[in-house]
Amino acid sequence: MNIVFLGTSAGVPTKTRNVTGIAVREERGSGWYLVDCGEGTQHQILHTNLSINALQAIFITHIHGDHCYGLPGILASAAMNGRKAPLKIMAPSGVKEWVEATQQHTQLYLPYDIEFVCTDDLPSVEFRKVRVETVALSHRVPSYAYRFTEKDINPRLDVEKLEQHNIPRGPHWGQLQKRQDVELNGKLIHCEDYLLYDQNPQKIIVAGDNDQPELLAQISHGASVLIHEATYTKDLVEKSGNNYGHSYAELVATFAEQANIPNLVLTHFSPRYQANPNLSPSIADIYQEAKAHYSGNLFLANDLDEYQLNKSNVLKKL
Amino acid sequence: MNIVFLGTSAGVPTKTRNVTGIAVREERGSGWYLVDCGEGTQHQILHTNLSINALQAIFITHIHGDHCYGLPGILASAAMNGRKAPLKIMAPSGVKEWVEATQQHTQLYLPYDIEFVCTDDLPSVEFRKVRVETVALSHRVPSYAYRFTEKDINPRLDVEKLEQHNIPRGPHWGQLQKRQDVELNGKLIHCEDYLLYDQNPQKIIVAGDNDQPELLAQISHGASVLIHEATYTKDLVEKSGNNYGHSYAELVATFAEQANIPNLVLTHFSPRYQANPNLSPSIADIYQEAKAHYSGNLFLANDLDEYQLNKSNVLKKL
Repeated sequence: MNIVFLGTSAGVPTKTRNVTGIAVREERGSGWYLVDCGEGTQHQILHTNLSINALQAIFITHIHGDHCYGLPGILASAAMNGRKAPLKIMAPSGVKEWVEATQQHTQLYLPYDIEFVCTDDLPSVEFRKVRVETVALSHRVPSYAYRFTEKDINPRLDVEKLEQHNIPRGPHWGQLQKRQDVELNGKLIHCEDYLLYDQNPQKIIVAGDNDQPELLAQISHGASVLIHEATYTKDLVEKSGNNYGHSYAELVATFAEQANIPNLVLTHFSPRYQANPNLSPSIADIYQEAKAHYSGNLFLANDLDEYQLNKSNVLKKL
Repeated sequence: MNIVFLGTSAGVPTKTRNVTGIAVREERGSGWYLVDCGEGTQHQILHTNLSINALQAIFITHIHGDHCYGLPGILASAAMNGRKAPLKIMAPSGVKEWVEATQQHTQLYLPYDIEFVCTDDLPSVEFRKVRVETVALSHRVPSYAYRFTEKDINPRLDVEKLEQHNIPRGPHWGQLQKRQDVELNGKLIHCEDYLLYDQNPQKIIVAGDNDQPELLAQISHGASVLIHEATYTKDLVEKSGNNYGHSYAELVATFAEQANIPNLVLTHFSPRYQANPNLSPSIADIYQEAKAHYSGNLFLANDLDEYQLNKSNVLKKL
């Protein structure tokens, strides 16, 4: 899977960072999933090769505006772009009501169906190429993480077993590999009995705003990548005496280290952290704090960064 | 007055043009007014020297998303920016209901008051430095134009009249000029009797989507600038047989010529018109069509263009 960051700022946009939007792309083809849709997400998409028509579903982590105020615009633009395919939106309570109020009050007509799935029920949703599970986090409002697990849609044939069972080579092997059952000499052969699936599917966790990373412990087993907010550094939270429901770099890094997650991407930085490392506080402070508590592959996301997770579960910035 | 274009594309944003947003600035100081607020308007503001805290009021021309979907974000960012001053929003029916639904469903708390004025009643609203009048246009939904008339807040003293009336020079002349009544030798002197106001205040019309420019005829008397959409060229409307409630360049240019408006700025271009004049159709086609029917000072707006109207009513691009 690939990841494209469409916005990496907390609360308000800056000149160089938009508010939150994260694209998770299927490994092959143009299909992709959008996690959060802050205002201006559709504008950021124009600077990528993502197609709104190939968008499979939208996931909203929580109801705060910097994570969902881009929804009306992206839905309207998809309509003007000629989208006809239904669109699934997984979101906590409030989002469905807001989108419906938007349609009503702003005369927004959509020529495609929206299927809302309420995240508060912690659903697991199947798509053709991924399965997405939900876990509850801790924030000022209900907030959630989504775990994307790649489905192996091209399993290998178990040749050894086929030969053991005296099923001779022929066109039916091809059918079995395409996940079709076949009849041979009057006997039905079930494809699933002769297919070998990848035992280590890629798993990527995209978390919403959250001040208790340990809530991700269970869902982190076998995860290759954690994308998590690090809104602050520790000193700033201690100084203000309030974390506003957010994590600081050390907190996330320590969790990712203990959970043995090999790749960690931090995002959602408070606009007070400046790009210039010679100014204080700076984004570099967040990096250094996290690096001191995490020995894996660490990244701080920038807008329009694209990352690829390879078969060895190493995340690389493209 | 000054004008800053924050978005000049129709319907959807492009890589170089955002959806509609137009800032009208007071001549002195930092006060300004926003006409329309498409998604991403607050992002565009970051690239200007406009301050959200100095925003005096927002005017929405009509309910379509490309003219108002930036409202929730700009209101939220003003709150995070510490705004306490009330904000007036003049808008047609539906906008108030939508903003209130947004506050309710997305837990948007604003630490300042919003005062809604319904544009459907064609109000005239007074601000300290400008008066704004409303006129109804023709579009698929109720759409309006706003005329900004500069108030003369620094009238001159009528020295001749003061001398005629034997009111001698002294500190009370300064008070009169500051629009304070004074008592002199037991007699009350009303400042308004001795003040000379500018007889030709600057008037700028900012029109919403509209396929009948002649509806602006009455309000155009004495107007220095007309800002109007020219979504299409004539050939494109004739070819499709549908104007979707929009104007083409010739239509607006012909009206501005007949109405003797000295400065015309066209905006809100369909994304199909390309920047490269060697491609077809191009933005240059819109310019040429308008130029053929208008002898005044013609501009096609680009995002972040700033224009200044001087005392001779000549509009100049800064």
